[in-house]
Amino acid sequence: MASEFGKNIRVSIFGESHGAAIGVSIDGMPAGVSVDMERLQHFLDRRAPGRSRFTTARREEDRPEFLCGIRGGVTCGTPITAIIRNRDIRSRDYSQMENIPRPGHADYAARVRYGGNEDCRGGGHFSGRLTAPLCVAGGIFLQALEAEGITVRARILEIGGNTKDPRGEIEKAMAEKDSVGGIIECVVNGMPPGIGDPIYDGLENRISLAVFGIPAVKGIEFGRGFEAARLRGSENNDAFYFDGGTIKTRTNNHGGILGGISSGMPIVFRVAVKPTPSIGKEQDSIRYDTGENVKMTVQGRHDPCIVPRAVPCVEAAAAMAIYDLMAGEIRPEREYRMEDRNNE
Amino acid sequence: MASEFGKNIRVSIFGESHGAAIGVSIDGMPAGVSVDMERLQHFLDRRAPGRSRFTTARREEDRPEFLCGIRGGVTCGTPITAIIRNRDIRSRDYSQMENIPRPGHADYAARVRYGGNEDCRGGGHFSGRLTAPLCVAGGIFLQALEAEGITVRARILEIGGNTKDPRGEIEKAMAEKDSVGGIIECVVNGMPPGIGDPIYDGLENRISLAVFGIPAVKGIEFGRGFEAARLRGSENNDAFYFDGGTIKTRTNNHGGILGGISSGMPIVFRVAVKPTPSIGKEQDSIRYDTGENVKMTVQGRHDPCIVPRAVPCVEAAAAMAIYDLMAGEIRPEREYRMEDRNNE
Amino acid sequence: MASEFGKNIRVSIFGESHGAAIGVSIDGMPAGVSVDMERLQHFLDRRAPGRSRFTTARREEDRPEFLCGIRGGVTCGTPITAIIRNRDIRSRDYSQMENIPRPGHADYAARVRYGGNEDCRGGGHFSGRLTAPLCVAGGIFLQALEAEGITVRARILEIGGNTKDPRGEIEKAMAEKDSVGGIIECVVNGMPPGIGDPIYDGLENRISLAVFGIPAVKGIEFGRGFEAARLRGSENNDAFYFDGGTIKTRTNNHGGILGGISSGMPIVFRVAVKPTPSIGKEQDSIRYDTGENVKMTVQGRHDPCIVPRAVPCVEAAAAMAIYDLMAGEIRPEREYRMEDRNNE
Amino acid sequence: MASEFGKNIRVSIFGESHGAAIGVSIDGMPAGVSVDMERLQHFLDRRAPGRSRFTTARREEDRPEFLCGIRGGVTCGTPITAIIRNRDIRSRDYSQMENIPRPGHADYAARVRYGGNEDCRGGGHFSGRLTAPLCVAGGIFLQALEAEGITVRARILEIGGNTKDPRGEIEKAMAEKDSVGGIIECVVNGMPPGIGDPIYDGLENRISLAVFGIPAVKGIEFGRGFEAARLRGSENNDAFYFDGGTIKTRTNNHGGILGGISSGMPIVFRVAVKPTPSIGKEQDSIRYDTGENVKMTVQGRHDPCIVPRAVPCVEAAAAMAIYDLMAGEIRPEREYRMEDRNNE
Repeated sequence: MASEFGKNIRVSIFGESHGAAIGVSIDGMPAGVSVDMERLQHFLDRRAPGRSRFTTARREEDRPEFLCGIRGGVTCGTPITAIIRNRDIRSRDYSQMENIPRPGHADYAARVRYGGNEDCRGGGHFSGRLTAPLCVAGGIFLQALEAEGITVRARILEIGGNTKDPRGEIEKAMAEKDSVGGIIECVVNGMPPGIGDPIYDGLENRISLAVFGIPAVKGIEFGRGFEAARLRGSENNDAFYFDGGTIKTRTNNHGGILGGISSGMPIVFRVAVKPTPSIGKEQDSIRYDTGENVKMTVQGRHDPCIVPRAVPCVEAAAAMAIYDLMAGEIRPEREYRMEDRNNE
Repeated sequence: MASEFGKNIRVSIFGESHGAAIGVSIDGMPAGVSVDMERLQHFLDRRAPGRSRFTTARREEDRPEFLCGIRGGVTCGTPITAIIRNRDIRSRDYSQMENIPRPGHADYAARVRYGGNEDCRGGGHFSGRLTAPLCVAGGIFLQALEAEGITVRARILEIGGNTKDPRGEIEKAMAEKDSVGGIIECVVNGMPPGIGDPIYDGLENRISLAVFGIPAVKGIEFGRGFEAARLRGSENNDAFYFDGGTIKTRTNNHGGILGGISSGMPIVFRVAVKPTPSIGKEQDSIRYDTGENVKMTVQGRHDPCIVPRAVPCVEAAAAMAIYDLMAGEIRPEREYRMEDRNNE
Repeated sequence: MASEFGKNIRVSIFGESHGAAIGVSIDGMPAGVSVDMERLQHFLDRRAPGRSRFTTARREEDRPEFLCGIRGGVTCGTPITAIIRNRDIRSRDYSQMENIPRPGHADYAARVRYGGNEDCRGGGHFSGRLTAPLCVAGGIFLQALEAEGITVRARILEIGGNTKDPRGEIEKAMAEKDSVGGIIECVVNGMPPGIGDPIYDGLENRISLAVFGIPAVKGIEFGRGFEAARLRGSENNDAFYFDGGTIKTRTNNHGGILGGISSGMPIVFRVAVKPTPSIGKEQDSIRYDTGENVKMTVQGRHDPCIVPRAVPCVEAAAAMAIYDLMAGEIRPEREYRMEDRNNE
Repeated sequence: MASEFGKNIRVSIFGESHGAAIGVSIDGMPAGVSVDMERLQHFLDRRAPGRSRFTTARREEDRPEFLCGIRGGVTCGTPITAIIRNRDIRSRDYSQMENIPRPGHADYAARVRYGGNEDCRGGGHFSGRLTAPLCVAGGIFLQALEAEGITVRARILEIGGNTKDPRGEIEKAMAEKDSVGGIIECVVNGMPPGIGDPIYDGLENRISLAVFGIPAVKGIEFGRGFEAARLRGSENNDAFYFDGGTIKTRTNNHGGILGGISSGMPIVFRVAVKPTPSIGKEQDSIRYDTGENVKMTVQGRHDPCIVPRAVPCVEAAAAMAIYDLMAGEIRPEREYRMEDRNNE
């Protein structure tokens, strides 16, 4: 199912950028998990647009309404569904898209895939706006993992190849009506060893499956990643040693994952984000109706660089993948205890 | 399910390196698909060990026995299962592994995951040997895709960072009882546009899920990949144009995938393979039983570089992911026709 | 995933009887399927409460709001989500349930399952009210099947064992503050042969999986069902014959399904619905808090017989199961045609 | 996937009646589960043919060969695969089936489904012989459940409507070259409360999904089942009471399942098995090649009544469904303990 993720839990993302609402359902979340709504909103605000001059002028409160599955800040054990209404919509900006696909966007591929039935306004279901429901779910998983002592933190490594002054790169791109991409690094600390399954349910498989669900991601590497392909085995292997009673490795080239399973060392991976395809410059494209090549300029509001807003999305995707693999471990509280009631 | 892949079809890989047999089941493959067993064996031979002085001395014929699902070289529509018997086994080589995890291997992670119940001989279920059944399935998908005009071809880009003389790098590593990794590039030609689904069933999600199922893979990138993170949008966007009646892009930085869906341009991705963790050099590790840090040297037979043998595995994984997404499109022949019978 | 159904499509039902809203998401529905909203509402009205003196006094408009996935009465190909707000709620009626489980209801089982975190008001996620979103999805599938010439029709066979005057039985039960169950028969006409898969994806497996998702269903039988267990093979076997060019059977004891696959004959199955567990009479139960046995009388509004309202639910469940198995057959329109645009 | 079962574990059944071998893979089974092979074989013998004059003369040892996943009678945590070679095959008996479908069998439906590519010899993948691998998996689950204090026992209630002398009915049918069906009742004792999930993952949904995977099953009912449809709510509701500290119901009309979740009372269900479609009597059918109606007599060896052999299959199916739902509860032993090693 296209917009679903999960083996032990199921996260279903729905909605279009310019439809009535976007949202997410989480099925299989155990009962009794606490969700701090204030912290969740704080997390969502990190992704929300219109917070700085670097992001799209579109202003959305991104305040999810929880329809079910959470009561008094605690999960019920039944499906959790939250929706976010779309408000600040200017679809006319996108009217030309009906006829002219935007370079670097999913417009044309989606047109072939859905035969023109898709809602392409603002990118429709392919819009970066769909990362809002991802962050609603991810924010819940991040809290659940923190309760287990596991933290997931991502940060910008570079923007447009610039590691020293990333923001400067964004400024320059903006001034030139252009856009830039960048690289995000994510580190998971407190990961217990022994999490993950072989072959297709390894941590690398599942994290990459989740991360490529974020629009504009074009690459992912774990530990030393592509650099490891240039090392000798004697350089890349991480020696085991006892740190007191705990087995650790002296280096972490494996990025905390061996054979798809966590080693107990921090999980480390990096994600390549391409430059925002929507730019102010004139570009070459085609017209479906006349069948001719044309010049076009993308209308609508867009970020010169989505990397800053992608950071919490990477955390959300990683938390979702890790929580899903751990769900079997984090056992739900089932036993109904008489004394609990008596103490009420 | 750990060792399973697929949404429309299901590929289940089973077995341990030193068990009775390894194998694969394919469920959901439509009826009436032709399988050329000779070509399949030829494909498997590209992966098989003992073919050159660069690969492990272990000799396995890797001749699959098909137990069901294929009759007279044509799929029946019911599950296909093939097994490969393990023959040339020297488990004593691995006896020390019971106590000392090999650096860079899954031994320790699997020990925690399975509490010591796992069959770790030769890496057990985590061994590269499990790529043989992957290639049995992948070889079938490659033939099915070729029947649709789709070809999947991978090649070595570099070994140990050397693009000019990859084999020389392997020689050097061998001489030093060391190992090297490398980078493989895979290109899919003849891909129709409109294949793939949004968010979590995009081609990038599904191909990476499959490719990380190959041991030693630590990174993947599509199109310009990590390099795209350093480009401007105006450089990275691929302009659309009409080539006769066909819509193409003048460049292919997107690697044939936009929004997870094929654009009709060739799919291009690169895979980072780490150096074989098994090396002849002495390494640092620990003993489970005594709880002390020790020196160890890996026994057993192993490749100084698994990249050459990983090339067909990457093709198999890509074919599996693509065929799975296309299965809905490549419609099985259901209609029973009287005339067919009459012409028999 | 508990509240999800489907192999080729995915139907996710969410919400609690007394929460903010209930709803459904459908993922994997092809693009270009027409949905007549007026007909859909007409179908939902068959299930809605408060239509007659035989049903609960609770009045709900049951008007779904479609948040995404359908535009201009045609599916977009991306997830479809519809919600129904809960309005006429009187939760105080259920306050005692916190402490006293209602006989015949899921209250106690759910209490153990969710450790008291569940929202048990009005049965919460286990309420018959959750069949409203089922009917929203099912109504769409019924229309899609009708477009293929397949009709699904259910009817009441008997109520409280009475085949002649079912409504009379409901009257009697009402007068005695009691409830009655009944048997529903469902017939699927126009079913093409060759639909269904072996062993666990047969029509019987999938239809029963879906039908047991309707609260109060306690049994299902196909064709002659339990009666067939009392026949000889020579009586129960259905002879094949040619009706012109079409292969048919002279009788239909097999109920249109052989080996889990449709034979082309009408699919026939019957469903046993237990009497509504909520009755006005005093019953024996227990108190969680004091641990003592008590007498209790169920408060709240309820139907003396839910069988009439279950009829469209059975049609919805059957349509969902059948459409899901046929989804691979009913091929989505993918090819984007230039002329279509020109003719617009 | 057609021949797969499971949400938390995955059971894949493969093979054809007259192919090289049949078998089963179990993925997701936790590590450290003991399997007593002698007891497993004893269980398989209950299903095996050729044990009495009432069963087909076909003799098969039904001795599974375990290829992987179990070592020293303990599960490794990785996929378990077992195969059973087909030996006593007389395919010529079935040569006519290529042209004439047997009434009551899947021959014709499968022919349409697979376009004539299916292996129909002896029923191929649709043969009752495929219940052998089901029993291999089910036998393992039965042992795993017993370790949790849960027993699953099925018995014959009636044969051909005869509850007093079932075997006499089989004799009579045999004498008349005919066949009979029957009803099997299954009881699960020691079931903890709180197992099962709402709507589509309830115990009724999952057990029926599994049980309809047994050829010839045409109906299933839980607790009072169809009889409940004729009772008043006041008769059918089961009153709760405290038996010491344990909550029980005074009656068990609900068959141990409320809202799809176990109540802690014994799970009780009944299964309707149709008479063996293969009979010695002449029957009406058609010829594909000539398109004419013909008389035919089924060749080959078959049981006059498969009900006795279906009894262990029902236990296997129920154990599979229940174990799958409990898998999240029966937590695998993950923690690697140093002391365990020291004590070795």
